[in-house]
Amino acid sequence: MRDFSSDHHWLSINTATVRQQWRLDRIIDECARRGIRTIAPWRDQVAAVGLEAIARQLRDTGTGLSGYCRGGFYPAADATGLAAALDDNRRAVDEACTLGAPCLVLVVGSLPGALQGQPAYRDIARARREVADGIAATLEYARQVKMPLAIEPLHPMQAAERACINTLEQALDLCDALDPARSGALGVAVDLYHVWWDPKLQQQIARAGRERLLAFHVCDWLTPTRDLLNDRGMMGDGVIELRQIRGWMEAAGYARHAEVEIFSDHWWAQPGELVLDTCIARHRSVV
Amino acid sequence: MRDFSSDHHWLSINTATVRQQWRLDRIIDECARRGIRTIAPWRDQVAAVGLEAIARQLRDTGTGLSGYCRGGFYPAADATGLAAALDDNRRAVDEACTLGAPCLVLVVGSLPGALQGQPAYRDIARARREVADGIAATLEYARQVKMPLAIEPLHPMQAAERACINTLEQALDLCDALDPARSGALGVAVDLYHVWWDPKLQQQIARAGRERLLAFHVCDWLTPTRDLLNDRGMMGDGVIELRQIRGWMEAAGYARHAEVEIFSDHWWAQPGELVLDTCIARHRSVV
Repeated sequence: MRDFSSDHHWLSINTATVRQQWRLDRIIDECARRGIRTIAPWRDQVAAVGLEAIARQLRDTGTGLSGYCRGGFYPAADATGLAAALDDNRRAVDEACTLGAPCLVLVVGSLPGALQGQPAYRDIARARREVADGIAATLEYARQVKMPLAIEPLHPMQAAERACINTLEQALDLCDALDPARSGALGVAVDLYHVWWDPKLQQQIARAGRERLLAFHVCDWLTPTRDLLNDRGMMGDGVIELRQIRGWMEAAGYARHAEVEIFSDHWWAQPGELVLDTCIARHRSVV
Repeated sequence: MRDFSSDHHWLSINTATVRQQWRLDRIIDECARRGIRTIAPWRDQVAAVGLEAIARQLRDTGTGLSGYCRGGFYPAADATGLAAALDDNRRAVDEACTLGAPCLVLVVGSLPGALQGQPAYRDIARARREVADGIAATLEYARQVKMPLAIEPLHPMQAAERACINTLEQALDLCDALDPARSGALGVAVDLYHVWWDPKLQQQIARAGRERLLAFHVCDWLTPTRDLLNDRGMMGDGVIELRQIRGWMEAAGYARHAEVEIFSDHWWAQPGELVLDTCIARHRSVV
């Protein structure tokens, strides 16, 4: 298992972590200043500055990506909506290519309209079929431009609104169906916030193997957790056994970054410099 | 599939649903008055009135139980704590016998101290081993007094504090290990709030079968859900496909009650009469 204690070579910052403090161009500069050489930006943060400008800044600062957030949200109430989602995912793939991302992360979506409080339908099995069809379509294009897709299982508490893929096993079953050859074109993003509780986690990480383990996101689960979305903890402040699970990832062949992704009203209220410095310190001490 | 639309013969009220409005003796009277012939009371509600008094009132009003809430909370920081949990579960079994319950529901516990915000350890695998050992010990006694134990998988968002058994598959694996003969002494309580999201739900309900399906709890999942504990919805107000899943239960052999269990700051603030009348109406219209 790699030693993270003496440097932060394998640290990546998901830029949502400091999205309330800074625009993306400032985030890239602040990361580069601290020797954080890898980030995972969100599409809306990129768009707010401009795709070409961000691509240039990444090159100029020598900053790489651990992933691009995010494609997905496939289910829709009607054919027009389904087609619009496919178009949007194609654009996301193109942007990921422009930015040199190693993968496009997919938050697959679920009951259409649920995020706005008005689900158009309640049939989660239908949403799952629409997700499978949507990923298949995006994958066809992504293969052509050689952009791997990483399905991110989301915590079951977000199953109605954000993602109807909720366990690593479910994500890997879909990978097996759509990419039986394990070509590397389709895999998973293992975000510990979403999957830490899963009794089959170790088994499914081993099943995934190197070809399917495209990204590894870390933060922590707080007790108590006060909000279903924006109360993630800093690594070390909660109950997730980060180092043990990183061991399982590495035993399965994962040798990429540990990406810190913290959605937190608490940390969004702190100075960005403090957040980044804390991420570095905790990456070394507990990840 | 049984027709629930014209009466509420198979409705049971988990008494937590109106616990903020009334003491248990009043709840029993209000249920009897409405022709609700079955309840599932909590230990603390029973204790507040007195075990013998409640047992007598149940007999006098012709009220039966769909389950008794609850045993469990096995994991502990040390041997003294583990032994105390076993003693407490033995008392819970005895109380369930006194009340004539068809099963004792187990909320198995998880990281000790996490519910109070200070986990004594973070090793959820250890908690799971302690749960398995604890259920095995309680089962030995429960078999002697013929009280079935129903393991209730809890939603993964409650995995740190309340239950480290979080899927029906995990609960059934434990049933298979501890009661391979499917004797009826050990089974599961399927609470749709906790398991509705599970992509393997239909498959695992079928696997459970009549011998293992000891209880069926209903409410609904709201979008958005604002609280991890006390924001359950009334049946019909959320996204759970209640009738479809009840169909799966009945196809697997379940022929007992649909028990309404709503933890909700909203419904606790309503008059108890309104809550019970709404439960009856929704039981008929959407369950």
